[in-house]
Amino acid sequence: MNRDFTFLGGAAGAWRVVTLAPVVGASLDPVERLRIVDRRLDALPEGARWMLRGVTSHERYVTRAEHATLAAKSPPLGRPAATRAAMIPIRKSAEWWGLAQDERRSILEARSSHIETGLAYLPAVARRLHHGRDLGEPFDFVTWFEYAPADSGAFEELVARLRRTDEWAYVEREVDIRLARDGG
Amino acid sequence: MNRDFTFLGGAAGAWRVVTLAPVVGASLDPVERLRIVDRRLDALPEGARWMLRGVTSHERYVTRAEHATLAAKSPPLGRPAATRAAMIPIRKSAEWWGLAQDERRSILEARSSHIETGLAYLPAVARRLHHGRDLGEPFDFVTWFEYAPADSGAFEELVARLRRTDEWAYVEREVDIRLARDGG
Repeated sequence: MNRDFTFLGGAAGAWRVVTLAPVVGASLDPVERLRIVDRRLDALPEGARWMLRGVTSHERYVTRAEHATLAAKSPPLGRPAATRAAMIPIRKSAEWWGLAQDERRSILEARSSHIETGLAYLPAVARRLHHGRDLGEPFDFVTWFEYAPADSGAFEELVARLRRTDEWAYVEREVDIRLARDGG
Repeated sequence: MNRDFTFLGGAAGAWRVVTLAPVVGASLDPVERLRIVDRRLDALPEGARWMLRGVTSHERYVTRAEHATLAAKSPPLGRPAATRAAMIPIRKSAEWWGLAQDERRSILEARSSHIETGLAYLPAVARRLHHGRDLGEPFDFVTWFEYAPADSGAFEELVARLRRTDEWAYVEREVDIRLARDGG
């Protein structure tokens, strides 16, 4: 199964950019459309203004019990009714990456309930996490979410809850891009 | 600090290959010399027969307490007396990567004492771990070790102990390359 993805901001793509705004740190250049390619591009294609690359990977914090619960409730991407999407690239600080595994897990779940919070918004919100840090990308992660227009309010609540956590104090760059699919 | 490295097998390099043998799965082509470049090369340079790329990254399993103990005892690479080296690329199975974090930690340390065993050979053996899985490399890890000739016996023991662990049942490809530096 392919693990490599490239997110291309530019004039073309199935997803129309509704809003693009920095949450913390530098933004990305404004673009009209987003295209997602299922491979890792080496160079920016003609017509694209920026690209972000990421690879899906093994789970870094989730326990077996959490995995089972998440897997049972997680919907696939590409549901016809899910015509809204969010692309949220983030970079965490050197301090975060210097923490040991048990410290990061403790902040992420014991103190911030990241996994438990995400679970509360399933199956409404489909999600795919892409890792970019070891690729040398400007963002450590790109998370891609898809949901139906009726679940927009729930999605706003999910994002707001995560941004209030202790874990988010380690986020030093974050951009929030909201999108709609044609017909959505 | 640079995190990207490329290991080049070929006719040139500061390290002379003493032995190169598969432990499990396919070997690498025999070469005479090894060169280590501190960046991620895109293409095989002239004169090289193969290259393996990896990135140093945050610790995936070590706790804060273990980190402190390891850090206090870990020597740097490049010690003048450390004229012997080993380069051991390994790939773990899909089954390993499908395990949850707590399951992998349990196999790695509770059942296999990987961290504790490594600690017993410090400060004799210097070590740097490079991750290749998310880069799409043929090996998930390349571990580079340096030690003095007098510590060769201890190093053999370390490697033998690790290969007898439950963790190693998940290793589906491993090559063992031993090297000596000029003058060593």
